[in-house]
Amino acid sequence: MPWITINTARHMEPSSLPTAVEVRGWVRTRRDSKGGFSFIELNDGTCLGNLQVVAPAELSNYADEVQKLTAGCSVIVTGELKESPAQGQSTELHADAVRVIGWCDGETYPLQKKRHSFEKLREWAHLRPRTNTIGAVMRVRNRISQSIHRFFDEEGFYYLHTPIITASDCEGAGEMFRVTTVDLDKLAAGNRPLDPTRDFFGKPTHLTVSGQLEGETYASALSRIYTFGPTFRAENSNTSRHLAEFWMVEPEAAFFDLRDNMALAERFLKRIFTDCLNDCGEDMEFFDSMIEKGKLDQIKSVIEKPFEHMTYTEAVEKLTTCGESFEYPVQWGTDLQAEHEKYLTSLVGGPVILTDYPATIKPFYMRVSDDEKTVAAMDVLVPGVGEIIGGSQREERLDVLTRRMAEAGLDESEYWWYVDLRRYGSVPHAGFGLGLERAVQYTTGMTNIRDVIPFPRTPGNAEF
Amino acid sequence: MPWITINTARHMEPSSLPTAVEVRGWVRTRRDSKGGFSFIELNDGTCLGNLQVVAPAELSNYADEVQKLTAGCSVIVTGELKESPAQGQSTELHADAVRVIGWCDGETYPLQKKRHSFEKLREWAHLRPRTNTIGAVMRVRNRISQSIHRFFDEEGFYYLHTPIITASDCEGAGEMFRVTTVDLDKLAAGNRPLDPTRDFFGKPTHLTVSGQLEGETYASALSRIYTFGPTFRAENSNTSRHLAEFWMVEPEAAFFDLRDNMALAERFLKRIFTDCLNDCGEDMEFFDSMIEKGKLDQIKSVIEKPFEHMTYTEAVEKLTTCGESFEYPVQWGTDLQAEHEKYLTSLVGGPVILTDYPATIKPFYMRVSDDEKTVAAMDVLVPGVGEIIGGSQREERLDVLTRRMAEAGLDESEYWWYVDLRRYGSVPHAGFGLGLERAVQYTTGMTNIRDVIPFPRTPGNAEF
Repeated sequence: MPWITINTARHMEPSSLPTAVEVRGWVRTRRDSKGGFSFIELNDGTCLGNLQVVAPAELSNYADEVQKLTAGCSVIVTGELKESPAQGQSTELHADAVRVIGWCDGETYPLQKKRHSFEKLREWAHLRPRTNTIGAVMRVRNRISQSIHRFFDEEGFYYLHTPIITASDCEGAGEMFRVTTVDLDKLAAGNRPLDPTRDFFGKPTHLTVSGQLEGETYASALSRIYTFGPTFRAENSNTSRHLAEFWMVEPEAAFFDLRDNMALAERFLKRIFTDCLNDCGEDMEFFDSMIEKGKLDQIKSVIEKPFEHMTYTEAVEKLTTCGESFEYPVQWGTDLQAEHEKYLTSLVGGPVILTDYPATIKPFYMRVSDDEKTVAAMDVLVPGVGEIIGGSQREERLDVLTRRMAEAGLDESEYWWYVDLRRYGSVPHAGFGLGLERAVQYTTGMTNIRDVIPFPRTPGNAEF
Repeated sequence: MPWITINTARHMEPSSLPTAVEVRGWVRTRRDSKGGFSFIELNDGTCLGNLQVVAPAELSNYADEVQKLTAGCSVIVTGELKESPAQGQSTELHADAVRVIGWCDGETYPLQKKRHSFEKLREWAHLRPRTNTIGAVMRVRNRISQSIHRFFDEEGFYYLHTPIITASDCEGAGEMFRVTTVDLDKLAAGNRPLDPTRDFFGKPTHLTVSGQLEGETYASALSRIYTFGPTFRAENSNTSRHLAEFWMVEPEAAFFDLRDNMALAERFLKRIFTDCLNDCGEDMEFFDSMIEKGKLDQIKSVIEKPFEHMTYTEAVEKLTTCGESFEYPVQWGTDLQAEHEKYLTSLVGGPVILTDYPATIKPFYMRVSDDEKTVAAMDVLVPGVGEIIGGSQREERLDVLTRRMAEAGLDESEYWWYVDLRRYGSVPHAGFGLGLERAVQYTTGMTNIRDVIPFPRTPGNAEF
């Protein structure tokens, strides 16, 4: 008898029914009917919906086992898959055998029928993927990740693994975690200064905050690359928007300017959203009805409409003349705050790409524009989440780059290999970074970033 | 005029030639002909081969710029793509404009025409992807990585991001790097004991050595998952086979036994190799002729033949009766060494899957067999590289698992969430791990693992 997933079972063509199958999964609920049979809702994580199993009293283990099944038990069921007469499901499985694989103590199993808060579920990170919401989030997260690889592969970008342990710091993009093999207890007791040359790598090393600089070296050889891997921030931010460990995608392309970069970012986001609608329809409808009403329409409209473009200078003008009162005042030369970004996205009713930021608030590697005051930076803002992508054209001119490094107080010799790229066949190039979790949050409507990554890492939390 | 990659230019259909195009890339060589023109070999990293550009003396910048082009300069060339009369190339570009984008000082540029050793190239990790070999390696590495995602996506496995920073240690699979925000200089000077509760996560944390245990939690909810991410070993091994940071793929499937696991591993490896042959043909021929003669035939034969299966006990019998003399003696109950694995793969003339190892030499999570002496482990060995995949069916029985943990001296309370999986709907399940770099080494024939990862991390080395 062929084994099939519950997703397959639920979407079997009516014309091919009835058919004999085997399914394997975990019991969500059991309900005993007076008619001499039980209904078992079975789920195997391949889709949101359950398969209804009809288990007749004639089964040899009906009284001993079937009637004792509770939420969480694992079973293998064989039987005939038939069209269901019930509403809301097209098939059901008429069991001729229900084999119990693993029991689940209903007294202690945390996931009872009642709904738990997302906060509570975080304490059971090992079990929460068995719930509707977290299961759906992780299927969407998978779909977005697959989309990322397909998109860049089709666009001729090579997947590049930049190092996680690094001796450089991408110009202090954030606080970093130290990586060491020094015995900290001995160090505390030793009463002698730390000698980093005796550490594993012979120097102080940290967890990467971005693979961009290394990515640029490969873009200067293979033309187009992208990274997709974990990045880290050791910031003590206990908010719903920050993680100490998160996944980032960073494409980098040679012979690319800011316009090319903006077009790539727009194609990229639209592809992700389109794939989610096409391949995760049931999950997306769940988010639309249970997590954020209107999510489906919002995403469809983002796919259909061209993204708005606006310079930083235009944005500041709009913000200062709109008559809104903001908590943080706006003036040319300061960073925009979440409230300002929110106003701008609601003003244009969708994503907006802000460009040409003041050089003084952006890192040294961004290309200085002819006006000498701005750099070729871009941020893609989306409603609800705010900045989802940040990028720029990079400074390819040796003299300008070294001047900017000096202004930023950076030691050029520490970046000798990065500067080398401007000595040897330098090319205009550009790239951006997308935070995967922000993208999953936007797609699903989940409000806390800890609920869109399997095992969140935040200050004080590294259980599991 | 349409911009195209050099890979596209070199594989244009003869019927569509001549055609006007623009290409962008880096000069590999320039040769001036007496006939009043120059030949420029141009590469953009999209393929191994170069595009030959014919630059006539009539170009306005011919004497001032074209004749000064050296290896490494970046250019944009427009012209007509024609069938080439020369041997070994099907097309060439007759330039009507050669625009120099970035010069490259021939006096200081490290990558001169002469061949450098791989060891030397490691000192120029930012430039080595511009060489034939490293460029080809990274294209194959990309192809294998893309294959990994496609294969598991098609087989119904969800891509799962298990944590990099972890408080558990997968039963000491290896030495670990400490991750901390404690100020080490202050700690050394402070003259007071380390207090891990004041560290970032409130406890000691390390870089992961495997995502398996966390992966099992999601397989127990979504049925099939795989991880693909960086893993770490803080071992002071300065060999051609070890990295401190490397990428690993770890599938895990519920309702899977050892046989299913073996079949999955075989399909998986064959898919990777097939994709490399189909999509990286030119690179693979390069490895076959320049790095390891016979590589193509070897890989084709691996794809065609079913993998051999052999139990550990059978392997020990063969090794002890074959009459070979080994450096390390073989007897039942000890781990096999590289020399033994090598003998076994040459004996069967291809990959072999060894199974059913002694329980005493394998970790606590592997399923104990009915004989109580062996566990349902499997190692896939390939010629040249040795173990490329290690996996097992996992112990799903609560009582056996906790007994094995006690025997291994592990504190059950530290693994409460892992043990929970055996309390709540436990299922037979299995999985394995593939080291990406080992797979790239085997596919390309590269002998040093430092040459198949962009920025190798080894003791004393974390430049770039």
